Amino acid sequence: MSEAIYGSTNPKEAVDKDGIQRFGSVIELDTEKEAYYRELHANVWEGVQAKIHECNMRNYNIFVAPIAGKKYLFSFFEYIGTDLEGDMGKFPQDEETLRWWKETDPCQKRLPGTPEGEQWFGLERVFFQA
Amino acid sequence: MSEAIYGSTNPKEAVDKDGIQRFGSVIELDTEKEAYYRELHANVWEGVQAKIHECNMRNYNIFVAPIAGKKYLFSFFEYIGTDLEGDMGKFPQDEETLRWWKETDPCQKRLPGTPEGEQWFGLERVFFQA
Repeated sequence: MSEAIYGSTNPKEAVDKDGIQRFGSVIELDTEKEAYYRELHANVWEGVQAKIHECNMRNYNIFVAPIAGKKYLFSFFEYIGTDLEGDMGKFPQDEETLRWWKETDPCQKRLPGTPEGEQWFGLERVFFQA
Repeated sequence: MSEAIYGSTNPKEAVDKDGIQRFGSVIELDTEKEAYYRELHANVWEGVQAKIHECNMRNYNIFVAPIAGKKYLFSFFEYIGTDLEGDMGKFPQDEETLRWWKETDPCQKRLPGTPEGEQWFGLERVFFQA
Protein backbone atom coordinates (compact mmCIF):
# COMPACT_ATOMS: atom_id res chain seq x y z
CA MET A 1 0.00 0.00 0.00
CA SER A 2 1.57 3.24 -1.16
CA GLU A 3 0.88 6.55 0.59
CA ALA A 4 -0.84 9.44 -1.17
CA ILE A 5 1.52 12.22 -2.21
CA TYR A 6 -0.09 15.60 -2.74
CA GLY A 7 1.15 18.56 -4.74
CA SER A 8 0.30 21.10 -7.41
CA THR A 9 -0.94 18.37 -9.79
CA ASN A 10 -2.47 16.17 -7.10
CA PRO A 11 -4.44 18.49 -4.85
CA LYS A 12 -5.39 17.20 -1.42
CA GLU A 13 -8.82 18.84 -1.63
CA ALA A 14 -11.68 16.65 -2.87
CA VAL A 15 -13.17 19.55 -4.81
CA ASP A 16 -11.13 20.93 -7.71
CA LYS A 17 -10.56 24.67 -8.14
CA ASP A 18 -13.45 24.90 -10.61
CA GLY A 19 -15.83 23.61 -7.94
CA ILE A 20 -16.10 20.18 -9.53
CA GLN A 21 -15.40 16.80 -7.94
CA ARG A 22 -14.03 14.19 -10.32
CA PHE A 23 -14.52 10.47 -9.77
CA GLY A 24 -13.02 7.35 -11.31
CA SER A 25 -14.29 3.90 -10.46
CA VAL A 26 -14.04 0.34 -11.67
CA ILE A 27 -16.03 -2.91 -11.69
CA GLU A 28 -15.64 -6.22 -13.51
CA LEU A 29 -17.84 -6.84 -16.55
CA ASP A 30 -19.32 -10.33 -16.91
CA THR A 31 -18.22 -11.13 -20.46
CA GLU A 32 -21.19 -13.49 -20.90
CA LYS A 33 -23.47 -10.50 -20.44
CA GLU A 34 -21.32 -7.98 -22.28
CA ALA A 35 -23.56 -7.73 -25.34
CA TYR A 36 -26.60 -6.96 -23.18
CA TYR A 37 -24.61 -4.43 -21.13
CA ARG A 38 -23.57 -2.65 -24.33
CA GLU A 39 -27.14 -2.71 -25.63
CA LEU A 40 -28.47 -1.16 -22.44
CA HIS A 41 -25.82 1.56 -22.35
CA ALA A 42 -26.13 2.54 -25.99
CA ASN A 43 -29.60 3.84 -25.17
CA VAL A 44 -29.88 4.42 -21.46
CA TRP A 45 -33.51 4.84 -20.37
CA GLU A 46 -34.61 8.46 -20.32
CA GLY A 47 -35.76 8.34 -16.69
CA VAL A 48 -32.35 7.07 -15.63
CA GLN A 49 -30.61 9.83 -17.57
CA ALA A 50 -32.91 12.43 -16.03
CA LYS A 51 -32.12 11.24 -12.49
CA ILE A 52 -28.36 11.33 -13.21
CA HIS A 53 -28.71 14.90 -14.42
CA GLU A 54 -30.93 15.90 -11.48
CA CYS A 55 -28.33 14.50 -9.08
CA ASN A 56 -25.68 16.81 -10.56
CA MET A 57 -23.60 14.19 -12.35
CA ARG A 58 -22.05 15.40 -15.61
CA ASN A 59 -19.52 14.27 -18.20
CA TYR A 60 -20.25 10.63 -17.39
CA ASN A 61 -18.13 8.21 -19.42
CA ILE A 62 -17.85 4.42 -19.18
CA PHE A 63 -15.06 2.54 -20.96
CA VAL A 64 -14.37 -1.19 -21.37
CA ALA A 65 -10.88 -2.33 -20.37
CA PRO A 66 -9.61 -5.81 -21.32
CA ILE A 67 -7.08 -6.75 -18.62
CA ALA A 68 -5.42 -10.12 -18.08
CA GLY A 69 -8.12 -12.17 -19.80
CA LYS A 70 -11.00 -10.40 -18.09
CA LYS A 71 -12.93 -7.23 -18.81
CA TYR A 72 -13.43 -4.27 -16.55
CA LEU A 73 -15.59 -1.18 -16.75
CA PHE A 74 -13.87 2.08 -15.96
CA SER A 75 -16.07 5.09 -15.27
CA PHE A 76 -15.32 8.77 -15.01
CA PHE A 77 -17.81 11.46 -14.02
CA GLU A 78 -17.95 14.93 -12.57
CA TYR A 79 -20.10 15.98 -9.65
CA ILE A 80 -21.12 19.64 -9.86
CA GLY A 81 -23.43 19.86 -6.84
CA THR A 82 -22.74 20.76 -3.22
CA ASP A 83 -24.39 17.82 -1.44
CA LEU A 84 -22.76 14.67 -2.74
CA GLU A 85 -24.20 12.35 -0.10
CA GLY A 86 -27.68 13.80 -0.46
CA ASP A 87 -27.64 13.58 -4.25
CA MET A 88 -26.23 10.05 -4.33
CA GLY A 89 -28.85 9.04 -1.78
CA LYS A 90 -31.61 9.88 -4.26
CA PHE A 91 -30.77 7.05 -6.64
CA PRO A 92 -31.93 4.11 -4.48
CA GLN A 93 -35.21 5.97 -3.91
CA ASP A 94 -35.95 6.23 -7.61
CA GLU A 95 -38.12 3.43 -9.01
CA GLU A 96 -36.76 3.74 -12.54
CA THR A 97 -33.15 3.60 -11.31
CA LEU A 98 -33.93 0.51 -9.23
CA ARG A 99 -35.41 -1.16 -12.33
CA TRP A 100 -32.30 -0.16 -14.28
CA TRP A 101 -29.95 -1.63 -11.67
CA LYS A 102 -31.95 -4.88 -11.83
CA GLU A 103 -30.77 -5.11 -15.44
CA THR A 104 -27.22 -3.81 -15.05
CA ASP A 105 -26.11 -5.32 -11.71
CA PRO A 106 -26.12 -8.91 -13.03
CA CYS A 107 -23.79 -7.79 -15.85
CA GLN A 108 -21.21 -6.67 -13.30
CA LYS A 109 -19.03 -8.40 -10.70
CA ARG A 110 -18.13 -6.23 -7.74
CA LEU A 111 -14.42 -6.10 -6.94
CA PRO A 112 -13.18 -7.55 -3.65
CA GLY A 113 -12.81 -4.67 -1.21
CA THR A 114 -15.72 -2.67 -2.57
CA PRO A 115 -17.49 -1.17 0.48
CA GLU A 116 -20.78 -2.73 1.60
CA GLY A 117 -23.72 -1.09 -0.20
CA GLU A 118 -21.59 0.19 -3.05
CA GLN A 119 -21.46 -1.32 -6.50
CA TRP A 120 -18.41 0.32 -8.10
CA PHE A 121 -14.94 0.42 -6.54
CA GLY A 122 -13.89 4.06 -6.11
CA LEU A 123 -10.38 4.88 -7.31
CA GLU A 124 -7.77 7.18 -5.85
CA ARG A 125 -6.70 9.99 -8.16
CA VAL A 126 -2.95 10.64 -8.40
CA PHE A 127 -2.84 13.37 -11.05
CA PHE A 128 -5.02 16.19 -12.32
CA GLN A 129 -4.37 18.92 -14.84
CA ALA A 130 -7.32 21.15 -15.74
CA MET B 1 -14.89 -10.06 -28.50
CA SER B 2 -18.14 -8.15 -28.29
CA GLU B 3 -19.34 -5.81 -31.02
CA ALA B 4 -19.83 -2.10 -30.47
CA ILE B 5 -23.47 -1.06 -30.11
CA TYR B 6 -24.20 2.60 -30.84
CA GLY B 7 -27.12 4.72 -29.76
CA SER B 8 -28.18 7.96 -28.11
CA THR B 9 -25.85 7.39 -25.14
CA ASN B 10 -23.06 5.76 -27.14
CA PRO B 11 -22.58 7.95 -30.20
CA LYS B 12 -20.73 6.47 -33.15
CA GLU B 13 -18.93 9.75 -33.83
CA ALA B 14 -15.47 10.15 -32.28
CA VAL B 15 -16.16 13.80 -31.50
CA ASP B 16 -18.90 14.56 -28.97
CA LYS B 17 -21.58 17.19 -29.67
CA ASP B 18 -19.63 19.80 -27.71
CA GLY B 19 -16.67 19.37 -30.08
CA ILE B 20 -14.63 17.46 -27.52
CA GLN B 21 -13.07 14.02 -27.91
CA ARG B 22 -12.91 12.00 -24.69
CA PHE B 23 -10.28 9.32 -24.10
CA GLY B 24 -9.85 6.58 -21.53
CA SER B 25 -6.71 4.45 -21.37
CA VAL B 26 -4.97 1.99 -19.10
CA ILE B 27 -1.49 0.71 -18.25
CA GLU B 28 -0.07 -1.41 -15.46
CA LEU B 29 1.75 0.34 -12.61
CA ASP B 30 4.94 -1.30 -11.34
CA THR B 31 4.15 -1.43 -7.62
CA GLU B 32 7.86 -1.35 -6.77
CA LYS B 33 8.01 2.09 -8.39
CA GLU B 34 4.62 3.30 -7.21
CA ALA B 35 5.97 5.76 -4.63
CA TYR B 36 8.20 7.41 -7.23
CA TYR B 37 5.35 7.53 -9.76
CA ARG B 38 3.13 9.26 -7.19
CA GLU B 39 5.91 11.70 -6.31
CA LEU B 40 6.42 12.63 -9.96
CA HIS B 41 2.71 13.12 -10.61
CA ALA B 42 2.02 15.16 -7.50
CA ASN B 43 4.16 17.90 -9.04
CA VAL B 44 4.42 17.34 -12.78
CA TRP B 45 7.20 19.42 -14.30
CA GLU B 46 6.01 22.76 -15.60
CA GLY B 47 7.37 22.21 -19.10
CA VAL B 48 5.47 18.94 -19.36
CA GLN B 49 2.27 20.60 -18.20
CA ALA B 50 2.77 23.42 -20.70
CA LYS B 51 3.17 20.96 -23.59
CA ILE B 52 0.03 19.07 -22.56
CA HIS B 53 -1.88 22.34 -22.57
CA GLU B 54 -0.37 23.47 -25.88
CA CYS B 55 -1.41 20.14 -27.42
CA ASN B 56 -5.04 20.79 -26.49
CA MET B 57 -5.39 18.18 -23.77
CA ARG B 58 -7.69 19.21 -20.91
CA ASN B 59 -9.33 17.71 -17.84
CA TYR B 60 -6.56 15.14 -17.55
CA ASN B 61 -7.05 12.72 -14.67
CA ILE B 62 -5.05 9.62 -13.66
CA PHE B 63 -6.39 7.15 -11.11
CA VAL B 64 -4.83 4.08 -9.48
CA ALA B 65 -6.88 0.88 -9.68
CA PRO B 66 -5.99 -2.17 -7.55
CA ILE B 67 -7.19 -5.18 -9.55
CA ALA B 68 -6.51 -8.86 -8.85
CA GLY B 69 -3.32 -8.27 -6.86
CA LYS B 70 -1.86 -5.81 -9.35
CA LYS B 71 -2.22 -2.10 -9.84
CA TYR B 72 -3.29 -0.28 -12.96
CA LEU B 73 -3.40 3.34 -13.97
CA PHE B 74 -6.58 4.61 -15.59
CA SER B 75 -6.46 7.90 -17.40
CA PHE B 76 -9.20 10.16 -18.71
CA PHE B 77 -8.65 13.29 -20.75
CA GLU B 78 -10.40 15.54 -23.21
CA TYR B 79 -8.97 16.68 -26.53
CA ILE B 80 -10.31 20.08 -27.57
CA GLY B 81 -8.25 20.64 -30.74
CA THR B 82 -8.97 19.78 -34.36
CA ASP B 83 -5.73 17.97 -35.29
CA LEU B 84 -5.36 15.06 -32.91
CA GLU B 85 -2.57 13.33 -34.82
CA GLY B 86 -0.64 16.55 -35.29
CA ASP B 87 -0.94 17.55 -31.66
CA MET B 88 -0.03 14.11 -30.33
CA GLY B 89 2.94 14.09 -32.69
CA LYS B 90 4.42 17.09 -30.89
CA PHE B 91 5.15 15.22 -27.67
CA PRO B 92 8.01 13.01 -28.91
CA GLN B 93 9.64 16.13 -30.36
CA ASP B 94 9.70 17.91 -27.02
CA GLU B 95 12.94 17.50 -25.06
CA GLU B 96 11.29 18.04 -21.67
CA THR B 97 8.59 15.46 -22.43
CA LEU B 98 11.24 12.94 -23.49
CA ARG B 99 13.09 13.50 -20.21
CA TRP B 100 9.79 13.06 -18.37
CA TRP B 101 9.03 9.77 -20.13
CA LYS B 102 12.50 8.52 -19.15
CA GLU B 103 11.31 8.80 -15.55
CA THR B 104 7.73 7.60 -15.96
CA ASP B 105 8.06 4.77 -18.52
CA PRO B 106 10.01 2.48 -16.15
CA CYS B 107 7.17 2.86 -13.59
CA GLN B 108 4.72 1.40 -16.09
CA LYS B 109 4.23 -1.97 -17.77
CA ARG B 110 2.55 -1.79 -21.15
CA LEU B 111 -0.44 -4.07 -21.57
CA PRO B 112 -0.25 -6.91 -24.09
CA GLY B 113 -1.96 -5.74 -27.27
CA THR B 114 -0.91 -2.10 -26.90
CA PRO B 115 -0.03 -0.93 -30.43
CA GLU B 116 3.64 -0.52 -31.33
CA GLY B 117 4.88 2.95 -30.47
CA GLU B 118 2.12 3.59 -27.95
CA GLN B 119 2.51 3.46 -24.19
CA TRP B 120 -1.06 3.43 -22.89
CA PHE B 121 -3.76 1.00 -24.05
CA GLY B 122 -6.69 2.97 -25.49
CA LEU B 123 -10.12 1.95 -24.25
CA GLU B 124 -13.42 1.70 -26.07
CA ARG B 125 -16.15 3.91 -24.65
CA VAL B 126 -19.58 2.29 -24.24
CA PHE B 127 -21.54 5.11 -22.59
CA PHE B 128 -21.56 8.89 -22.49
CA GLN B 129 -23.93 11.38 -20.93
CA ALA B 130 -22.94 15.04 -21.07
